[in-house]
Amino acid sequence: MKKVYLDHASTTYLIPEVIEAMKPYYDNVYGNPSSIHQEGRKAKYALYEARKKIADILNCQPTEIFFTGGGTESCNLAILGVASVFNDKKLKFKPHIITSRIEHSAVLKPCQKLEKEGFEITYLPVNRDGIVSVPDLEKAIKPETILISIMYANNEIGTIQPIQEIGGLIKTKNQKLKNKIIFHTDACQAAGFLDLDAQKLGVNLLTLNASKIYGPKGVGLLFIREGTPISPIILGGGQENGLRSGTENLAGIIGLAKALELAQKSRIKESQRLKKLRDYLIIGIEKRIPKVILNGDAKERLPNNANISILDIEGEAALLWLDKYGIFASTGSACDSKSLEPSHVILALGRPYEYAHGSLRFTLGKRTKKEDIDYLLKVLPVIVKKLRTISPIKVKI
Amino acid sequence: MKKVYLDHASTTYLIPEVIEAMKPYYDNVYGNPSSIHQEGRKAKYALYEARKKIADILNCQPTEIFFTGGGTESCNLAILGVASVFNDKKLKFKPHIITSRIEHSAVLKPCQKLEKEGFEITYLPVNRDGIVSVPDLEKAIKPETILISIMYANNEIGTIQPIQEIGGLIKTKNQKLKNKIIFHTDACQAAGFLDLDAQKLGVNLLTLNASKIYGPKGVGLLFIREGTPISPIILGGGQENGLRSGTENLAGIIGLAKALELAQKSRIKESQRLKKLRDYLIIGIEKRIPKVILNGDAKERLPNNANISILDIEGEAALLWLDKYGIFASTGSACDSKSLEPSHVILALGRPYEYAHGSLRFTLGKRTKKEDIDYLLKVLPVIVKKLRTISPIKVKI
Repeated sequence: MKKVYLDHASTTYLIPEVIEAMKPYYDNVYGNPSSIHQEGRKAKYALYEARKKIADILNCQPTEIFFTGGGTESCNLAILGVASVFNDKKLKFKPHIITSRIEHSAVLKPCQKLEKEGFEITYLPVNRDGIVSVPDLEKAIKPETILISIMYANNEIGTIQPIQEIGGLIKTKNQKLKNKIIFHTDACQAAGFLDLDAQKLGVNLLTLNASKIYGPKGVGLLFIREGTPISPIILGGGQENGLRSGTENLAGIIGLAKALELAQKSRIKESQRLKKLRDYLIIGIEKRIPKVILNGDAKERLPNNANISILDIEGEAALLWLDKYGIFASTGSACDSKSLEPSHVILALGRPYEYAHGSLRFTLGKRTKKEDIDYLLKVLPVIVKKLRTISPIKVKI
Repeated sequence: MKKVYLDHASTTYLIPEVIEAMKPYYDNVYGNPSSIHQEGRKAKYALYEARKKIADILNCQPTEIFFTGGGTESCNLAILGVASVFNDKKLKFKPHIITSRIEHSAVLKPCQKLEKEGFEITYLPVNRDGIVSVPDLEKAIKPETILISIMYANNEIGTIQPIQEIGGLIKTKNQKLKNKIIFHTDACQAAGFLDLDAQKLGVNLLTLNASKIYGPKGVGLLFIREGTPISPIILGGGQENGLRSGTENLAGIIGLAKALELAQKSRIKESQRLKKLRDYLIIGIEKRIPKVILNGDAKERLPNNANISILDIEGEAALLWLDKYGIFASTGSACDSKSLEPSHVILALGRPYEYAHGSLRFTLGKRTKKEDIDYLLKVLPVIVKKLRTISPIKVKI
């Protein structure tokens, strides 16, 4: 049976170039980078080369790249690591953090934890198109603000946030502030599509991982601008300059570096290709199925993301039918799929529950071809028709 | 040139069976285990199978196995995760933790952090042979004791701690205690040599990783006995039953399960083989080089570990010379190799600084043969002689 994987935002397969790049690091270069003998030094050198390669892409120093066990850990290190510096200081004010309502749970959950511990958190709303308003953000800043964490591109609806503009705003604000605001962005979904230049973006912290860009799972990084006050969340042997202990996952790190290098190389061309296919998908669905709404801004979105609410159906039921036809998509974030709650992202758009319940996310990738979209466009209308005949819900629009 | 890797306690190469087992999880079974479509379900099933395989080895339930990013993270989750439950409760007493002076920094550093935060920590001494005294441990227990963390086998000197006896003691104590004591053991070095039956050991928490047993780096696990009070240290999508968020490193987990399965299978036979070789090494050095002392108990030690203080030389100088001859060993823990401080483990044996400075650790493994040891026994005396002629130190023994 035909198989069409349209869930690249959940995770990607590894591509042959990445698998090949990792191979020597299983049984050839296998030393512990902390060992002082040849095997250790070979590993240490490879680690440095990977760091350097990534630093070139992010336009930063190799010493500003810190490898972690994945995107979630990087986000936790950014949020909890910065917060703990301010916890330690026994401040006389209540530290304040600004984030958005559409962040990944890897950012939201640490913020909620800090809220319980006495931090004040502002969860910025987004407009109907899923974009954070910079004037709103500016209004939310106060003298107690220590950290702002806004994702680069949303994992569910693919909307691109004005990171560069926010970075510029914070820079200006910081000129007058005694307590400098630290700016973190979760760029896991942006890699491969958007510019990752840390200087242009004006961020202090930037999270990336490999498993969304055809690299291995279980490895990520946090860019930490020199001078950023931050404490480790995992303690031990003092690897990663004391900020992330544990023997380095060298094969994984090599895989991450290779994946990022390739993603960067193909970024412009692949974005153009996917954008065309993606628009073909969206227009195709809008033509064939009545009562559908695109979630998230039509232009300011990742080239591979189509998130569509199909009214009067249950998204999960549609997914299972698509699955039977060999089409793999999702309702929202894979990470939150266990929960029966409707997507917090779709709800943040100000849409009623029914819209969130019928949302489907199609995320295209390297191997997606026009014939895959044609197949989806053939199958999906049949499924929707079937589901609508048995649906008790009839939303008025 | 001949190459002899005698640093298996630092980290191991991957063996072909493990590499083969991981392969399908790069580009065949690549889904996100949280996705509800076929690709996700295939990944979820593989994850369950790995968990089940490991649970059988540890004699526990699959739901008691929690995958992490490595041994260090597992130790941190054990210590900080349990501590945070007691932090949250705003207790009226000062919570007390018992550990030993010879733990890995992945245990010591989190304990030191907690000490700063108001916990009381007892760092138990060890005897001259590097073993924790159970009567001393018993004396250290008080009503405020919430956690005891004692490693199964030491990473530097290979001494095996009486975990089963300690487990029994805690069980007896707990019958009378209102606040039950939680028992954690770091078993990273024990895997492949010692019995990992969590019931026999009587532990609530047990740390393991793959990179010491011919599996991949960057993946580990924490056994958490059902009902153990513990909070996550990494928050997000709620993977691993809420205790460790982040997309699961499936290939790594499959590699860990395979490595542990193979380590378990060859445990008895390989231990016997290595013990003979190891004793051949120790006796060979003692015969050929004057003024050497075996660090750690001669019997209660891992079959692959020989840690020897060679007086009147600098361990690091000897290492670099050995390296020139293609022999790869270490002075102590690779993780602490950046620090110029003498080993905290050797110092804990009550030996003077000079003994720690001249300590060398040889750790044997799967590919170590008698001819490798013969080569070491040929080369090492020459190196020691050379170093001693230029050494200003002359220790009296």
